[in-house]
Amino acid sequence: MTATLGGVTDSSSKTRVDGRDLDQMRPVSIKRSWLSQAEGSVLVTFGRTTVLCNASVTEGVPRWRKGSGLGWVTAEYEMLPRATNDRSPRESRKGKIGGRTHEISRLVGRSLRAVVDYKALGENTIVLDCDVLQADGGTRTASITGGYVALWDAIAWLRERGSLAGEPLTGSVQAISAGLVGGVPMLDLAYEEDSRADTDMNIVMSGDGDFVEIQGTAEGAPFNRDLLGQLLDLGTKGCAELKAAQQEALKVEL
Amino acid sequence: MTATLGGVTDSSSKTRVDGRDLDQMRPVSIKRSWLSQAEGSVLVTFGRTTVLCNASVTEGVPRWRKGSGLGWVTAEYEMLPRATNDRSPRESRKGKIGGRTHEISRLVGRSLRAVVDYKALGENTIVLDCDVLQADGGTRTASITGGYVALWDAIAWLRERGSLAGEPLTGSVQAISAGLVGGVPMLDLAYEEDSRADTDMNIVMSGDGDFVEIQGTAEGAPFNRDLLGQLLDLGTKGCAELKAAQQEALKVEL
Amino acid sequence: MTATLGGVTDSSSKTRVDGRDLDQMRPVSIKRSWLSQAEGSVLVTFGRTTVLCNASVTEGVPRWRKGSGLGWVTAEYEMLPRATNDRSPRESRKGKIGGRTHEISRLVGRSLRAVVDYKALGENTIVLDCDVLQADGGTRTASITGGYVALWDAIAWLRERGSLAGEPLTGSVQAISAGLVGGVPMLDLAYEEDSRADTDMNIVMSGDGDFVEIQGTAEGAPFNRDLLGQLLDLGTKGCAELKAAQQEALKVEL
Amino acid sequence: MTATLGGVTDSSSKTRVDGRDLDQMRPVSIKRSWLSQAEGSVLVTFGRTTVLCNASVTEGVPRWRKGSGLGWVTAEYEMLPRATNDRSPRESRKGKIGGRTHEISRLVGRSLRAVVDYKALGENTIVLDCDVLQADGGTRTASITGGYVALWDAIAWLRERGSLAGEPLTGSVQAISAGLVGGVPMLDLAYEEDSRADTDMNIVMSGDGDFVEIQGTAEGAPFNRDLLGQLLDLGTKGCAELKAAQQEALKVEL
Amino acid sequence: MTATLGGVTDSSSKTRVDGRDLDQMRPVSIKRSWLSQAEGSVLVTFGRTTVLCNASVTEGVPRWRKGSGLGWVTAEYEMLPRATNDRSPRESRKGKIGGRTHEISRLVGRSLRAVVDYKALGENTIVLDCDVLQADGGTRTASITGGYVALWDAIAWLRERGSLAGEPLTGSVQAISAGLVGGVPMLDLAYEEDSRADTDMNIVMSGDGDFVEIQGTAEGAPFNRDLLGQLLDLGTKGCAELKAAQQEALKVEL
Amino acid sequence: MTATLGGVTDSSSKTRVDGRDLDQMRPVSIKRSWLSQAEGSVLVTFGRTTVLCNASVTEGVPRWRKGSGLGWVTAEYEMLPRATNDRSPRESRKGKIGGRTHEISRLVGRSLRAVVDYKALGENTIVLDCDVLQADGGTRTASITGGYVALWDAIAWLRERGSLAGEPLTGSVQAISAGLVGGVPMLDLAYEEDSRADTDMNIVMSGDGDFVEIQGTAEGAPFNRDLLGQLLDLGTKGCAELKAAQQEALKVEL
Repeated sequence: MTATLGGVTDSSSKTRVDGRDLDQMRPVSIKRSWLSQAEGSVLVTFGRTTVLCNASVTEGVPRWRKGSGLGWVTAEYEMLPRATNDRSPRESRKGKIGGRTHEISRLVGRSLRAVVDYKALGENTIVLDCDVLQADGGTRTASITGGYVALWDAIAWLRERGSLAGEPLTGSVQAISAGLVGGVPMLDLAYEEDSRADTDMNIVMSGDGDFVEIQGTAEGAPFNRDLLGQLLDLGTKGCAELKAAQQEALKVEL
Repeated sequence: MTATLGGVTDSSSKTRVDGRDLDQMRPVSIKRSWLSQAEGSVLVTFGRTTVLCNASVTEGVPRWRKGSGLGWVTAEYEMLPRATNDRSPRESRKGKIGGRTHEISRLVGRSLRAVVDYKALGENTIVLDCDVLQADGGTRTASITGGYVALWDAIAWLRERGSLAGEPLTGSVQAISAGLVGGVPMLDLAYEEDSRADTDMNIVMSGDGDFVEIQGTAEGAPFNRDLLGQLLDLGTKGCAELKAAQQEALKVEL
Repeated sequence: MTATLGGVTDSSSKTRVDGRDLDQMRPVSIKRSWLSQAEGSVLVTFGRTTVLCNASVTEGVPRWRKGSGLGWVTAEYEMLPRATNDRSPRESRKGKIGGRTHEISRLVGRSLRAVVDYKALGENTIVLDCDVLQADGGTRTASITGGYVALWDAIAWLRERGSLAGEPLTGSVQAISAGLVGGVPMLDLAYEEDSRADTDMNIVMSGDGDFVEIQGTAEGAPFNRDLLGQLLDLGTKGCAELKAAQQEALKVEL
Repeated sequence: MTATLGGVTDSSSKTRVDGRDLDQMRPVSIKRSWLSQAEGSVLVTFGRTTVLCNASVTEGVPRWRKGSGLGWVTAEYEMLPRATNDRSPRESRKGKIGGRTHEISRLVGRSLRAVVDYKALGENTIVLDCDVLQADGGTRTASITGGYVALWDAIAWLRERGSLAGEPLTGSVQAISAGLVGGVPMLDLAYEEDSRADTDMNIVMSGDGDFVEIQGTAEGAPFNRDLLGQLLDLGTKGCAELKAAQQEALKVEL
Repeated sequence: MTATLGGVTDSSSKTRVDGRDLDQMRPVSIKRSWLSQAEGSVLVTFGRTTVLCNASVTEGVPRWRKGSGLGWVTAEYEMLPRATNDRSPRESRKGKIGGRTHEISRLVGRSLRAVVDYKALGENTIVLDCDVLQADGGTRTASITGGYVALWDAIAWLRERGSLAGEPLTGSVQAISAGLVGGVPMLDLAYEEDSRADTDMNIVMSGDGDFVEIQGTAEGAPFNRDLLGQLLDLGTKGCAELKAAQQEALKVEL
Repeated sequence: MTATLGGVTDSSSKTRVDGRDLDQMRPVSIKRSWLSQAEGSVLVTFGRTTVLCNASVTEGVPRWRKGSGLGWVTAEYEMLPRATNDRSPRESRKGKIGGRTHEISRLVGRSLRAVVDYKALGENTIVLDCDVLQADGGTRTASITGGYVALWDAIAWLRERGSLAGEPLTGSVQAISAGLVGGVPMLDLAYEEDSRADTDMNIVMSGDGDFVEIQGTAEGAPFNRDLLGQLLDLGTKGCAELKAAQQEALKVEL
């Protein structure tokens, strides 16, 4: 009944903090129209990780793109000060954005742009704000997964107004983490697991099962090609499940 | 059945956008333990206005207070970029906190400190983060009202751990806005009303019915003492109702 | 000979540091054309508190107001590093404006705008720089009171050049502080009194005796409606005296 | 004589701008002691890409690590304003570090830390400054590859002074890019190729042939597992050659 | 009666805007104790140029000097926004200090330190704030000249309290500008002259007639050694007069 | 054979750290086209001091100069973090440019502009980036001297493209330091000498032997006119030698 991952692991010997199987994701929820003002507003949770993804439509595009006939999609990720277990100072008060915030904002933006046809979007801009209300590992993958749904709603909003030049979404996108903890590959790391992981991998996939982005980091010992394969297997499984969750939320076939 | 305000207004001729009586507040909800990591975590709504108030406890106090035996309470207020109807740029990206953010952060901090006995708090610091998820007028008053409940929970958390030197809360605190719109005094202005108001007033009161802070601004014509009195009457009524809502949420007599 | 404030206080039992009566302001001086380059340049003193108020005229208005036919008035308040008893670091060196600076800049701007008819001003901008050379309490009220006179001179400068579309000043504006020190209401607090005050109130009034802005803060115990009334009485008296001082400086009836 | 990559490509049909084979790197040079003041100073070139890698030793560690007996290694990457074909404004003048600078600084630091035994390093800190003097693609991989040699020299400097608690280097590290350009996998992309790439991958490997970090991004169409495999093959080949170049520069077996 | 400068110029053919002789300074005034809170507070004017020089004493020295037994003197120069003929934005609002501000702050600090014996000062710090209230050329030279007097008063303040380890002032310091306007050397340039000058020179001298700092810049054509000599002659004359003005203000022989 | 400086010094008693004569410069090298992308790219060394001077041409001029028909030349100076013997934090990370960086950037820009005819340059901008790779005293003088050569190459680049309106260079410019160390005047101070100098002077000259800028600072005792003369003699000698080095690099008569 439980998945076997390349034969390496055995679900009967559960090793995870919260009793999950090695290839089991935390409960996922995706609530649309969570707030009423943004064109797309999604509250996504992966376990205790809670991210508010708001998609804002503005007519027009940044200056460097004007007159091109092409649209633009970008993302900004940030954590509320008490998203984490200990309070962190606000970046607005420090007067600068930290490296991690920059890095994840760029990842989320790239991942969503991978499924957008700028021409079909017309000269419209969609900004995705992913604000982490609570963080327990996987905030960037939740942001991408929930962000896609908010993007979908924002595009629907544009469609209703007849402001599109075609169908901008060329596919769907999902993201999940996998990692090696104590040498054992496992899916969707919670914070406690993530902080002990030897290798931490974020896998962003298209709904067709191809890779949009993979980022794997050996925090401890370097990893070999075989383990890489197992992590990618886990990620593929997780992304398929997330696609199903997105479909259920959107009530469409992606 | 509806309140009459000094006889000036008549509830039968409703003038408000959303059909409310002149002295009627929007529906208020106060959800405790909304997130699981902060010592106090309250989601407060005044109509569509939605503020997440997280209270974080840290042992110790800022340097300038060390060794005094006294605790400290402070607050930081911020709006998510898409809290408003149009998206605003993040202050963290702009690299500076705006004047309005500063002003409200200071107001919230002062208001809560008005009911705190630093000595009883011991050398502990409580930081209140009020992050506006959605803004439709009254974000500062919601922050104070919800912030008080989060502060209450954070203090309860300290009490359970035996970390208090006494009972730090000397009372409760509530806040509400009132204003003159088209010359007519009304309670708890929504954004659309606020933007048309001649005079805008924020009233912070203690549970005993005294004033902790009043800020009244004539956006249009200056106001006289009589109208000031009517606005204070409205504020007093609103704060009493908010105290009841806090009591219901906390299940205690304040 | 000395004023009695609602019968509560008795001038025979003076309690103030500098021997003033409870309802007595410090000596006020308003010097026009103190510097020679600004269109309006006023050095105002309330006792030892010394503020240089320069009004600068520029043709045109901020971008968001262009083509509206309306003018604009704004203010910036700042303290020199050694305005205070101990030297404070410069905000320019810290790279950010503090909350207090922001808050007071906004208050001064709002207060002056309350008596300006933008249409009559035409598409001109007046910036009021209030730089505190020495601070001994009441710097914001001195800034508003002196700032009005500088604004008056800047408007006269525009009038001489035929650059106005009408008469922009719809009235005059004055400001004074009042507070409860040791439970006793008193007018125009000096720094030493201010730092001991239970309640501190800033009252901005129009020359007609109406309120432009009131800000009252209970630093210690919350205050009731009766005490509020006494503070407003004191403020009304003070503002009337300041209006007289403005009239004397301007040699006009306001 | 030329490599065949999984049989997919044929070196006889060269498609690269500069006439290189698909699996051929640009000429690499690694000059040690390029400057005389830093403990490790390496000028590394990958074709026209030129990076100055300076390793600075300081006694002691950051505050959060004091007393742990562990050392620390960190990196800062930056481009000179005219490293690129068009001049970019300095980040120091803009007053903030851009997202790309942050991201690469973090990557370089993580990659080098992967082969450092903090305990053996003792409470010493090594900062690696990677300043790109000229950029033509692959600046981050050149930074890691050259940075390792500078780190090696800095550690030798510590060893000579008897300041080590053991041998801190647990292995070597190399990095190279590979990508899909027009659907064709190729190694070590120059800027012109990189800007046309569908998929861009940075591969950081240990001298043992395991992965330290992989980052693959589909700029255009998502990529499948087979193409991923081919890119990893290319990267493995490139890193082996870079290890040889490091060995030649250091005159040691890594 | 008027000075002849090396025979080159003839005072009968006055060429200066304000009718001054070529070697004539503008009227200088030095008012001590202009404000009451700073240990030294001097309002200095060179014609319309008006600078407030406040010297602040703090016990102790910056961290890098602690335990050395040596004192420290530093200076910060800034212009109020409307010091100039057109208003300039505040550096505090821009979030950064401009190059000119930095440059002059450093010059003033160096010039004053040239006559200070740190050992005699003991571990005390004196900060000189030179805030330009009105600028009409020569603000840096007025800052140094007036700043010396404020420094003198601050040291007297320390002497009275018995906080000195000796006599810290090893001499006096004065500063004046000279320049070539239309090829003609002249002393103490006003703004209008300065903006037309070919060469602009700032000369800082000790009371003994030696040079503390000279900065000469050819804004137009480079200048030769002979003209340099004439400018230094002018500067020497000007500094002697400023020394007399300082002596008169201080009522001591410098 | 060795120079005698006004008879004061005797080369037989060499006092310099590195065995140089008092009037002897360190070896100078000027390499053109050091990098391949910038229009002018010069690596200049004065002994161990190493500066990369890149001149970047952009069509057009800053906004305030548009339509004037005049070009613009500006410079930015910065030190790499490990240019110095101890690593300094990056200004980009600190979020602000230091005073020294500002001061030298401005000096380099002014010095180069002194030999530029803006009209002949046409509406083109040349930015000179002087990045100090290694600092051992004299970084600003090396920047000016090498910067001139880079500027020359950038202008040649414009000339080839027919983008000039005439010949923009009205002459050449060189710069060298001189100073009093232990009371003895010497040329081209290395860092170790500079840090012990009583007086430090930077002399910028035109190829015709006139002064473009002189900045002399008494770090210790003030200096008299005779010593000033000797320092200027040294500077004149040094600049003549630097002109020869520039001529050799450019293979033209300047």
